[in-house]
Amino acid sequence: MPEFLTLLPPADALNKLLDHIQADPAPERVETEHALGRVLISPVYAPHPLPEFARTTVDGYAVKAADTFGASESLPVYLELIGEVPMGAAPEIALTAEKCLLIHTGGMLPEDADAVVMLEYTQDARPNEMEILRAVAVGENVIEVGEDVKEGQEVIPAGTQLRPAEIGGLMALGFTEVSVARKPKVGILSSGDEVIHPSQNPTPGQVRDINAYTLSTAVEKAGGVAVQYGIISDTYAEMYAAAERAKAECDLVVVTAGSSASTRDLTSQILDELGQPGVLVHGVNTRPGKPTILAVCDGVPMIGLPGNPVSALVNTQLFVVPVVKALLGERVSRPQPRVQAVLSINLPSQAGREDWVPVALVRPSTSSGEGWLAEPIFGKSNLIFTLSRADGLLKIPADATGLSAGKTVEVYLM
Amino acid sequence: MPEFLTLLPPADALNKLLDHIQADPAPERVETEHALGRVLISPVYAPHPLPEFARTTVDGYAVKAADTFGASESLPVYLELIGEVPMGAAPEIALTAEKCLLIHTGGMLPEDADAVVMLEYTQDARPNEMEILRAVAVGENVIEVGEDVKEGQEVIPAGTQLRPAEIGGLMALGFTEVSVARKPKVGILSSGDEVIHPSQNPTPGQVRDINAYTLSTAVEKAGGVAVQYGIISDTYAEMYAAAERAKAECDLVVVTAGSSASTRDLTSQILDELGQPGVLVHGVNTRPGKPTILAVCDGVPMIGLPGNPVSALVNTQLFVVPVVKALLGERVSRPQPRVQAVLSINLPSQAGREDWVPVALVRPSTSSGEGWLAEPIFGKSNLIFTLSRADGLLKIPADATGLSAGKTVEVYLM
Repeated sequence: MPEFLTLLPPADALNKLLDHIQADPAPERVETEHALGRVLISPVYAPHPLPEFARTTVDGYAVKAADTFGASESLPVYLELIGEVPMGAAPEIALTAEKCLLIHTGGMLPEDADAVVMLEYTQDARPNEMEILRAVAVGENVIEVGEDVKEGQEVIPAGTQLRPAEIGGLMALGFTEVSVARKPKVGILSSGDEVIHPSQNPTPGQVRDINAYTLSTAVEKAGGVAVQYGIISDTYAEMYAAAERAKAECDLVVVTAGSSASTRDLTSQILDELGQPGVLVHGVNTRPGKPTILAVCDGVPMIGLPGNPVSALVNTQLFVVPVVKALLGERVSRPQPRVQAVLSINLPSQAGREDWVPVALVRPSTSSGEGWLAEPIFGKSNLIFTLSRADGLLKIPADATGLSAGKTVEVYLM
Repeated sequence: MPEFLTLLPPADALNKLLDHIQADPAPERVETEHALGRVLISPVYAPHPLPEFARTTVDGYAVKAADTFGASESLPVYLELIGEVPMGAAPEIALTAEKCLLIHTGGMLPEDADAVVMLEYTQDARPNEMEILRAVAVGENVIEVGEDVKEGQEVIPAGTQLRPAEIGGLMALGFTEVSVARKPKVGILSSGDEVIHPSQNPTPGQVRDINAYTLSTAVEKAGGVAVQYGIISDTYAEMYAAAERAKAECDLVVVTAGSSASTRDLTSQILDELGQPGVLVHGVNTRPGKPTILAVCDGVPMIGLPGNPVSALVNTQLFVVPVVKALLGERVSRPQPRVQAVLSINLPSQAGREDWVPVALVRPSTSSGEGWLAEPIFGKSNLIFTLSRADGLLKIPADATGLSAGKTVEVYLM
């Protein structure tokens, strides 16, 4: 049987893992001012309407709209000017028929006023009298009470990752503190007897650890906290002990396997023995990343990533990032940033397998400054600088046998 | 003369400001592990090739390719097995003709070996002898020295914002510390006599400060540090003193004006008098955001934003974010994240003016789970929750009189 019939597609593999994750993030109280990127733990309801009072959106004169009916340049309406609305305070004077008050943008509408005539459609007549050169309808140039949000309305759903707009909304309602999901701890274990700490000088046969750091920064970007467990020797006892400790201390454990088959087998054995139900998925129908292992041990998700840096980082995006977001209880999923581009060359692919190809996005030479050309970056998945030269990843779906040059494709930004 | 002929388009206005900015960010030494999102201050050159030794990309047998020529399942070649390459160390044995060594993925190629035969194309023959069932070419299944990067090669250009891939690349080369641009300080002044701190309870006529926080978080996201100068009273003396202090202490100063015309005029007057050359742009041909002011005072860029929350945040994206990136010396500009979507309704627009419309991205009801429908969110620019309901901003270019329903558009994610 061809291998692609026995391996799960990445999306199915991920769902199998997510099915076992009960997101129940612990709440953490933070200052709203410093809550950018955090995930709201429960919905926010408006304690009062917004705005709390009717405001003008223009500089002009607060009026009763009915008093302006029929007003035009040739036949102005004359209204008595009885005062000015101060900024930041309630008007001291109520409006009565055929009167008007000077009002500035953002000012509070006086009692019984229901519209504002813009300054440019008025003219001084006599002292304390204005010519109104244009009629206004009820509500014109006014924001009504509750026009932004009503009292008691759910304004931000639980599971929303806070952007500047939500931070502003919280402040508008007086929420200077907010309950967000505690950042999930992601334990990172590196393995492979050839792997050394980046601060060390490799002797022949040794390579510096890359994956622990592409992984930790990707985790940080996704909203988690990386906990480094260092480089673990390729023995069952040491690996098991380290994985067990990480499982006890973290919300998610990721092992980046050494590149040899024996290390990968060791990872898989340990993830299967560390708790129930153990390994759920061993091998995913994607390139790069086939040897990815997904497991759950006594409620803690565990992921084994391939040792090659490119495979490790691509599969971090496919599996680790979504699990971190699930642990955060992120429920409002925003569209993933991508860029449309025209593929520069033919890209063959094996049907039945999902391929992820690093591409650089460049401006086509004939371009007017708009549009992108996606240039695949070829390189074995052991070459970290393949990814550093890439702007994003191009997906070749499993049902395609490749993509043709000139085709418009979507590139997922990295 | 119509106003759109006298107001600058946003891109031209921004360039006028950027022309006055000499990006010369101070360097700051940080641990590479914690350098995500920081901007590299000078190019990184490889101190040694990567990889430093020829490595196998598969599990198999290191051979001289010439020894395998003609090998097939029906006519295997027999090679003497003389040992195994240990992981993380140089092979102790050199290869000689008609011999082979067992080698694991990532292992160092022994001297005089030039290819690796995959395990699946070999078979045990006699003790210490392997059957080779397929020929390999020179270099097959091998990464050569310097195949990722050559010694002395520029691997990351100055001005690159570091992503996980670059962090990994730096670690691979042993750079556990890196020089990045110090985060520019962005002074934020709120004005408007109706504006109060979010922790206070507004009395009638008052509103809580929103813009200081949508701005500070947008600045943080762009890589700057926000310095809050609080809410300044709408008097020349207090405003001038606060702006002067912010100018002395920060790399960029942003004033969010109160919404009334008089506050806006005050901002403009002060930004013009605070230093040379003063106001460069007063009014931009865009909606929302027409009253935006761009100035440079004795080398410090100063921006006056409209007081309405939606205008303020949209123009933060158009002007403040690019200036922060310029101050950081960010030179590698990645494509901006956007999403293609189908516009749900006709959107009229005034020709000659660039419009930015908040839109929600939703899955069309007929959809297969792919594709997005862009639904414009209407609301006066005073309504902060207009933006909180939006996924992004849709640009209607100045040369369009609107966009038709069903048109494919690009939405800039917020």
